[in-house]
Amino acid sequence: MSDLDDLRDAMREFTADRDWERFHDPKSLLLALVGEVGELTELFQWLPADDAANLARQEPLRTRAGEEMADVLLYMVRLADVLGIDLREVAERKLVLNAAKHAASTARGLPPLQRTGIQQPV
Amino acid sequence: MSDLDDLRDAMREFTADRDWERFHDPKSLLLALVGEVGELTELFQWLPADDAANLARQEPLRTRAGEEMADVLLYMVRLADVLGIDLREVAERKLVLNAAKHAASTARGLPPLQRTGIQQPV
Amino acid sequence: MSDLDDLRDAMREFTADRDWERFHDPKSLLLALVGEVGELTELFQWLPADDAANLARQEPLRTRAGEEMADVLLYMVRLADVLGIDLREVAERKLVLNAAKHAASTARGLPPLQRTGIQQPV
Amino acid sequence: MSDLDDLRDAMREFTADRDWERFHDPKSLLLALVGEVGELTELFQWLPADDAANLARQEPLRTRAGEEMADVLLYMVRLADVLGIDLREVAERKLVLNAAKHAASTARGLPPLQRTGIQQPV
Repeated sequence: MSDLDDLRDAMREFTADRDWERFHDPKSLLLALVGEVGELTELFQWLPADDAANLARQEPLRTRAGEEMADVLLYMVRLADVLGIDLREVAERKLVLNAAKHAASTARGLPPLQRTGIQQPV
Repeated sequence: MSDLDDLRDAMREFTADRDWERFHDPKSLLLALVGEVGELTELFQWLPADDAANLARQEPLRTRAGEEMADVLLYMVRLADVLGIDLREVAERKLVLNAAKHAASTARGLPPLQRTGIQQPV
Repeated sequence: MSDLDDLRDAMREFTADRDWERFHDPKSLLLALVGEVGELTELFQWLPADDAANLARQEPLRTRAGEEMADVLLYMVRLADVLGIDLREVAERKLVLNAAKHAASTARGLPPLQRTGIQQPV
Repeated sequence: MSDLDDLRDAMREFTADRDWERFHDPKSLLLALVGEVGELTELFQWLPADDAANLARQEPLRTRAGEEMADVLLYMVRLADVLGIDLREVAERKLVLNAAKHAASTARGLPPLQRTGIQQPV
């Protein structure tokens, strides 16, 4: 039993029922994914940074954020299916890589090193 | 048993072990998510549209695409946790809404209506 | 004399010199644009919201932010050229539309209305 | 005379007239920028790759694409102002760097090298 497999199967069926496979090449799906990410960021853009989590846990924002996150996830699941990628497997592998890259002992309390070259104040 | 719950728990532990909760407000996580989406789109940007899926199923692109998709998914999972959103639940609800919005009988073979106002040739 | 026309001409020449017009269809350029936007957001993701402008005005972040903003702008200029869009003209027209949409008298001090349905605390 | 300076001044005045400077920290502006990029990608996502430029040159898509590109540009201009970055200057500097990075003699007809490690078929 797997959430991600279930969602993949549901999206696969949804797509086939509408004969939409022809539209689901990777570049088109990526642009659609970006569109949904944009709808998600719009919900948060003007919220005060330190109150955003609290506001997003209340209606009507809660439902709207859930819908946009769902859209992003569903396009991710669909893209993974088109590419033959097992999302759970790659995510678990990446967690291991991330843990090695950011050892808890040295990374503790410091933000991830950035390409900026700066270590931000914490 | 749930993939998404497992990944959520793993990200929660990863974050706590590094004392990184302080960085994980929604707006910061969204910017990080956009960063990972950008790394994913970079892999595909110059590929021929009709050969992209095929090329992405071969190495070395296959592993790179999996890593970037993993990063996007992990930030999605983390953001959902911070917002108290159950990703599986909202995705299943959205699938129902999408099925109602795009009835298979009328949508068959046509691309989703767009804000462009145009119905693309198919 | 026009900045945007100069940049358009420079990008047009850069592209022609490398015989890269074949790669510059709108969907590919959009994915490249998203990639550069992602590199820009990565610079800011973990910065404290209320100190980000200050930090970004100092080196080494200043130079990095300028480079990524340049990349975003150059892809915008190139996309506009491919689409036959005059960026200055559409921007000026949009400023008029925005001024009508958000009348200064009523919008003063309030964030733009959002699709969230909420009016954030200010 | 400079397009980009004119747009910067217009955005500065627009913002001040509404007392919106308080909302225009870099992270918020970046999320707003991503939202507009998403609205732009949505216009193109399902278009056939090889006909997208042609379709986007016709109404109603032409006007819609122009509006979304205008929004992206205006947020870029506003972000640059907040960061004290001269967009024209950084773009011209980046063009020089790009020309050095991709020498016309060797890059001719080949897509830019990617992080994928693959050289796509051309």
